[in-house]
Amino acid sequence: FSVWQRESAYRYRDIVVQKQDGFTHILLSTKSSENNSLNPEVMKELQSALSMANANDSKLVLLSAVGSVFCCGLDFLYFIRHLPDDHKRESARLAEAIRNFVNTFIQFKKPIVVAVNGPAIGLGASNLPLCDVVWANEKAWFQMPYTTFGQSPDGCSTVMFPKIMGEASANEMLLRGWKLMAQEACSKGLVSQVFWPGTFTQEVMVRIKELASCNPIVLEESKALVRCNMRLELERANERECEVLKKIWGSAQGMDSLLKYLKSKIDEF
Amino acid sequence: FSVWQRESAYRYRDIVVQKQDGFTHILLSTKSSENNSLNPEVMKELQSALSMANANDSKLVLLSAVGSVFCCGLDFLYFIRHLPDDHKRESARLAEAIRNFVNTFIQFKKPIVVAVNGPAIGLGASNLPLCDVVWANEKAWFQMPYTTFGQSPDGCSTVMFPKIMGEASANEMLLRGWKLMAQEACSKGLVSQVFWPGTFTQEVMVRIKELASCNPIVLEESKALVRCNMRLELERANERECEVLKKIWGSAQGMDSLLKYLKSKIDEF
Amino acid sequence: FSVWQRESAYRYRDIVVQKQDGFTHILLSTKSSENNSLNPEVMKELQSALSMANANDSKLVLLSAVGSVFCCGLDFLYFIRHLPDDHKRESARLAEAIRNFVNTFIQFKKPIVVAVNGPAIGLGASNLPLCDVVWANEKAWFQMPYTTFGQSPDGCSTVMFPKIMGEASANEMLLRGWKLMAQEACSKGLVSQVFWPGTFTQEVMVRIKELASCNPIVLEESKALVRCNMRLELERANERECEVLKKIWGSAQGMDSLLKYLKSKIDEF
Repeated sequence: FSVWQRESAYRYRDIVVQKQDGFTHILLSTKSSENNSLNPEVMKELQSALSMANANDSKLVLLSAVGSVFCCGLDFLYFIRHLPDDHKRESARLAEAIRNFVNTFIQFKKPIVVAVNGPAIGLGASNLPLCDVVWANEKAWFQMPYTTFGQSPDGCSTVMFPKIMGEASANEMLLRGWKLMAQEACSKGLVSQVFWPGTFTQEVMVRIKELASCNPIVLEESKALVRCNMRLELERANERECEVLKKIWGSAQGMDSLLKYLKSKIDEF
Repeated sequence: FSVWQRESAYRYRDIVVQKQDGFTHILLSTKSSENNSLNPEVMKELQSALSMANANDSKLVLLSAVGSVFCCGLDFLYFIRHLPDDHKRESARLAEAIRNFVNTFIQFKKPIVVAVNGPAIGLGASNLPLCDVVWANEKAWFQMPYTTFGQSPDGCSTVMFPKIMGEASANEMLLRGWKLMAQEACSKGLVSQVFWPGTFTQEVMVRIKELASCNPIVLEESKALVRCNMRLELERANERECEVLKKIWGSAQGMDSLLKYLKSKIDEF
Repeated sequence: FSVWQRESAYRYRDIVVQKQDGFTHILLSTKSSENNSLNPEVMKELQSALSMANANDSKLVLLSAVGSVFCCGLDFLYFIRHLPDDHKRESARLAEAIRNFVNTFIQFKKPIVVAVNGPAIGLGASNLPLCDVVWANEKAWFQMPYTTFGQSPDGCSTVMFPKIMGEASANEMLLRGWKLMAQEACSKGLVSQVFWPGTFTQEVMVRIKELASCNPIVLEESKALVRCNMRLELERANERECEVLKKIWGSAQGMDSLLKYLKSKIDEF
């Protein structure tokens, strides 16, 4: 997406927010982390932008990212910097940040459309089914390699992925770190449409403007009808997932296997 | 379907009902509305035919339509005639008619097989997942363009469509009015088999007769096992969907946007 | 799978159990029944092997079968031998055996990967979604021809099949005995990967060893997160399904139609 500033645009550090006619466009473009990965500060900016979009006259939110990556999940460099200090307390703080971030998506009242421009990894993928429509660039791919670095699933993926693609495929992703290309993600129901890289932005914008011309009450009521059935179940799943993350990060063994993985990753570069 | 009268056939105004060996065949063939669309009178005839099929020795119901259209959803000409009068009261009456109609499907004890011969639109499509097996003519298509005419979803589609095809694709249909061709509907799980137009009726009849030769207790108990898990959730969803429809139709803004859409449609002809 | 004995291998009559590095491999290889079909004795051996795998240091279980058949469902020869005696009591005993067997899968804490080497029929197919990952040999197929022999569904299939593939396709399988080939089962979400017969065992073993190298706490916690949402619902569905089986087997009509079917099957041979 080309990023221009308009009078209505608010500038954050890690995201770009453009208030457009009928919708708010939020783009990940992180400075405090690499590859649009999520640390508590990035998450807070996203939550604040969503909260603003909820309060203003936007009928819906378009979520995407600047650059060739969509979102690489949790910011592990932030982990390395913070977790070793007082890792029980830091684990709890990080798990709490994730819980609030995910709850923001569960509870958001206006439709969220995501345009996945590139790789969506970890929490950057697990969170997608909490959004309402998911479009992908043909180059995008989706992976949650949790077990590889000794972590458990987040973003309500333990409820939503089995619901969308069945237990067998969901567990391939959650337990085995299966990587889905955009077309596969589409045939499994995680993504609803795939567009060619050359026309991705235009295709997205045409459809968003169409959607933003609908009666806002109808959009909000329709979303409420679809989501109300699962809200409580999702809040509980989020709670449980974050409890397990806290427990794993807080344990010596969990911490070790995570740090070992991260150091091996850093040594790669 | 060729429509012939047999001794066992009962003639209604808007539907044709044929009691056959082991099953009841109900065909939409509306006189009081165009394109097999649904108004309170058509719905009442369908409910009465289903109630009869429930009471007699039919093991199952085959639901289809006469002509090249399956069902075009709600009868908007009926709306134009009735809503402007006393639109608060009429909105409530229509919403109540829909609620009862949809509950009839939720609560029906014998298997319902649908043979979708042509376009299934609005409530004619949203209702399908409440039936047990759905076959489609290759020419059939499925669309719920609710937001286009300022309406919210009905027929428990806000529960069943996300369950069947995932939130992303369901919202493409419910919020964006996505049109699915028969083959797409099949790959998304809305339809279980697609047949060629030339042999559609034969293929349906062979399979129906096979199914009608099963032990009726086994059929009914099997359906009960599949459906009992969701009955309460579906009745609640139906209730909520109808409450929202009543609210939207009852509001000046909702009424206006609906009438504007309908008048534009009529001017097209 | 080639079956070799190792020091760590325990020999049962109807199954082969191999304790390997990080996982337990359980293979159906029935002597007391034909085609790896399930009678109370086979089920008891499987439950005992699973219980052992739960208690030892296995991180997961691999379930497969010796020969060209995976599992042909309930052992109907056992039925013919036992049911006519005192069929009310025997029906209750069999239904209870199935209930306990299925509950073992619902409640099992470590991931179960199934490698379906050939036909999976009846309870041999209905049970699969209670396992976590399902791989199939390209020659495998899946069928639950319950209504053909006057039986109702088991293995929680009335909950899991509609969840995985939608009501329409699930009912094709549960009510109409639809046979899915491996590739179809994969596109419908019942199976997550299909491998060619020539390399099936190798492909399975590579992936199992990879999975068995993960942190066991992460595997168990991840499975718990995915499964805890449905455990109660599945136990109830299992209960209901077994109640209906008991009722059908216990009735004169149900017994007759089952025996008629079985005798026709035996006459075929």
